[in-house]
Amino acid sequence: MVPVITFTTDLGLDDAYVAAMKGVILGINPRARLVDICHTIKPQDITQAAFVLDQAYPFFPEGTIHVVVVDPGVGTTRRAIILKKGSALFVAPDNGVLSYVVRRSPGSRAGRRFRLGPGQEAVVLNRPGLWREKVSPTFHGRDIFAPVAARLSLGQPITDFGDVINSLAVLPLDAARRAKDGSVTGHIIHIDGFGNLVTDIKEDKLPGDRPGVLVRVGGRLITGLSRTFADRPGLLALVGSSGYLEIAQRDGNAAATLGVRVGDEVYIMPNKPV
Amino acid sequence: MVPVITFTTDLGLDDAYVAAMKGVILGINPRARLVDICHTIKPQDITQAAFVLDQAYPFFPEGTIHVVVVDPGVGTTRRAIILKKGSALFVAPDNGVLSYVVRRSPGSRAGRRFRLGPGQEAVVLNRPGLWREKVSPTFHGRDIFAPVAARLSLGQPITDFGDVINSLAVLPLDAARRAKDGSVTGHIIHIDGFGNLVTDIKEDKLPGDRPGVLVRVGGRLITGLSRTFADRPGLLALVGSSGYLEIAQRDGNAAATLGVRVGDEVYIMPNKPV
Amino acid sequence: MVPVITFTTDLGLDDAYVAAMKGVILGINPRARLVDICHTIKPQDITQAAFVLDQAYPFFPEGTIHVVVVDPGVGTTRRAIILKKGSALFVAPDNGVLSYVVRRSPGSRAGRRFRLGPGQEAVVLNRPGLWREKVSPTFHGRDIFAPVAARLSLGQPITDFGDVINSLAVLPLDAARRAKDGSVTGHIIHIDGFGNLVTDIKEDKLPGDRPGVLVRVGGRLITGLSRTFADRPGLLALVGSSGYLEIAQRDGNAAATLGVRVGDEVYIMPNKPV
Repeated sequence: MVPVITFTTDLGLDDAYVAAMKGVILGINPRARLVDICHTIKPQDITQAAFVLDQAYPFFPEGTIHVVVVDPGVGTTRRAIILKKGSALFVAPDNGVLSYVVRRSPGSRAGRRFRLGPGQEAVVLNRPGLWREKVSPTFHGRDIFAPVAARLSLGQPITDFGDVINSLAVLPLDAARRAKDGSVTGHIIHIDGFGNLVTDIKEDKLPGDRPGVLVRVGGRLITGLSRTFADRPGLLALVGSSGYLEIAQRDGNAAATLGVRVGDEVYIMPNKPV
Repeated sequence: MVPVITFTTDLGLDDAYVAAMKGVILGINPRARLVDICHTIKPQDITQAAFVLDQAYPFFPEGTIHVVVVDPGVGTTRRAIILKKGSALFVAPDNGVLSYVVRRSPGSRAGRRFRLGPGQEAVVLNRPGLWREKVSPTFHGRDIFAPVAARLSLGQPITDFGDVINSLAVLPLDAARRAKDGSVTGHIIHIDGFGNLVTDIKEDKLPGDRPGVLVRVGGRLITGLSRTFADRPGLLALVGSSGYLEIAQRDGNAAATLGVRVGDEVYIMPNKPV
Repeated sequence: MVPVITFTTDLGLDDAYVAAMKGVILGINPRARLVDICHTIKPQDITQAAFVLDQAYPFFPEGTIHVVVVDPGVGTTRRAIILKKGSALFVAPDNGVLSYVVRRSPGSRAGRRFRLGPGQEAVVLNRPGLWREKVSPTFHGRDIFAPVAARLSLGQPITDFGDVINSLAVLPLDAARRAKDGSVTGHIIHIDGFGNLVTDIKEDKLPGDRPGVLVRVGGRLITGLSRTFADRPGLLALVGSSGYLEIAQRDGNAAATLGVRVGDEVYIMPNKPV
């Protein structure tokens, strides 16, 4: 098996940080396959990182190791962890960046923590013998996460790296709510590079009558669900490749046109004969 | 043989799209070597993608598979194809993005289509059994192109993927014209990250008398062809690493200095004694 | 052994230049592992490239080959070289971009050149038979450095590539100075993507009394050294992951707050009872 290691960070593309991590990994396991998910997460934006990671990780092969370095609390008392979910492994700070990952699985939420259910295991990283000898308090990505990921890719079991824990921090993510009248209130959770607005409204929350769907966003009304970005001119709503409702603009940038931001409301009106 | 797969897309660096494609590929062929050509093609700019691809692909080893995802018509009736040219393979929408690739080879143009000549074969992708099980109408890159490229990298023949076609869409690309008086009229086809202007004037279209060449661009006149970017101060013209005439500025940005854009004219004056 | 080749360039992410280099390498050695250090060095900024390279290369495994293409003098009389330092190899223009690399080792400086000491060897690239057949005067990265790096990764000895030289160009880098009164005068040498200011003041130049350290930068005074970015609100000074004194701002951008630039002075005041 060829072990794959992915990276989701806010370390940017203009510095040596990411390369230093990769060098450390290749020094321990020269056969590891390294794949960038994203390095341009907005500095310290845990919510964005959580979303971007969730959009990529399910497509990777069994046994892939996902390293996440969006870590404003680096060097403080925040814990660093390994989460094992099915065959996928995650090396990350315990700051909520794995919120979407754990929520896809059984488990239960209690306030800002999520109690792991069956098929999920986690350990806290507290065995410095498996880290780089000298650890900078400001760059655990290089000195802790990278060597841990490299050793995981060699097949070392997660329990070697620290004590078992049974809950993780999660973000207070909004989730779309469906009201009794059939209306759905959701939010923009991500704006992609094309200016498409990804919402937290999953396909199964949408009304069955797709041509009659009415979507209100940024003060504008969109009628009906489209199938592709080219279905019609102007603004359109569709179920995106993410599985969520997205707002897009044909040959344009919906975010710029609407002047909206992450967190803004998206409302789906009930479609009844009046 | 180690199979190489390259990527030329407008999917950007800030989202999970590219990584999702790579994950799908590694799930099918964990030994594939993945190389990014460019992910920051301007959204939906087929012409720019065609040029950038053409500047990179000839340098890759035999059998390399080039995946192109600049695809404004994704999910509509536009076809997706595999082109085989010599030993190189291209997986792309049939929207003109392979214009430079096919034009380097024998074949004939008829309007907006190019009839393939010897050494070129193509199929339309119409065998869903070789795609991902669930195909999003908005992301064929992940759900169709990626699995097709991965299977090609395992040695599967192109005819497995669909019916043979004998022509491809091509862009109405301007090509430099040489007039009877020896003057050449061309255009800027690309502005690179240094602000260098790449034109569509190939080396063999240039007058033989290089010191006497006069180039007019953006209202300025440049005399003589230089050999390197450091030959002289200010604006200079030279045959770039692309094989085309380029306009550059020593220690500066020619595009900013001249205020020109892609599509603007570049004129080479005949150099005769008056 | 799996040979690793890294890249530090100003070629950007929007063009095909980097991919063309990688294609050339994979054509010669399909087993080479390719890792990007940085491609967004400011055009022709040799000083920045020298710093970024120095922050990454020590973390790579033995035998790694580092290719540097920040090369304003490409095609002129500037030399291109291979430097061997320990087991690490560098393929680069001889324009000072290896200044930090050689200065970490024994050797002596004479004006703008550095005489190599024990454990360092270098050759000038002057054997065109080991380059691409046609060499563009404007892109030695693709036509000279890439094939040389690929052949090095196959184990070819550096003396095959050219004549031995015993000195390299170095930049007139400022180094922090410690005065008799215990004060230290240094400079900002890099601003990273978070807006953190990296100085040329190494940890061992700092006063022993860390809580009492006074740092003056951009007209502001910072008292005491922090350990992490989250130690306290506002501006803080700490020994960064680079091993140098850094100025940062908790949940903010120190460079923007202070309005400073690379080259600006950072002053550490002696901390004596007055």
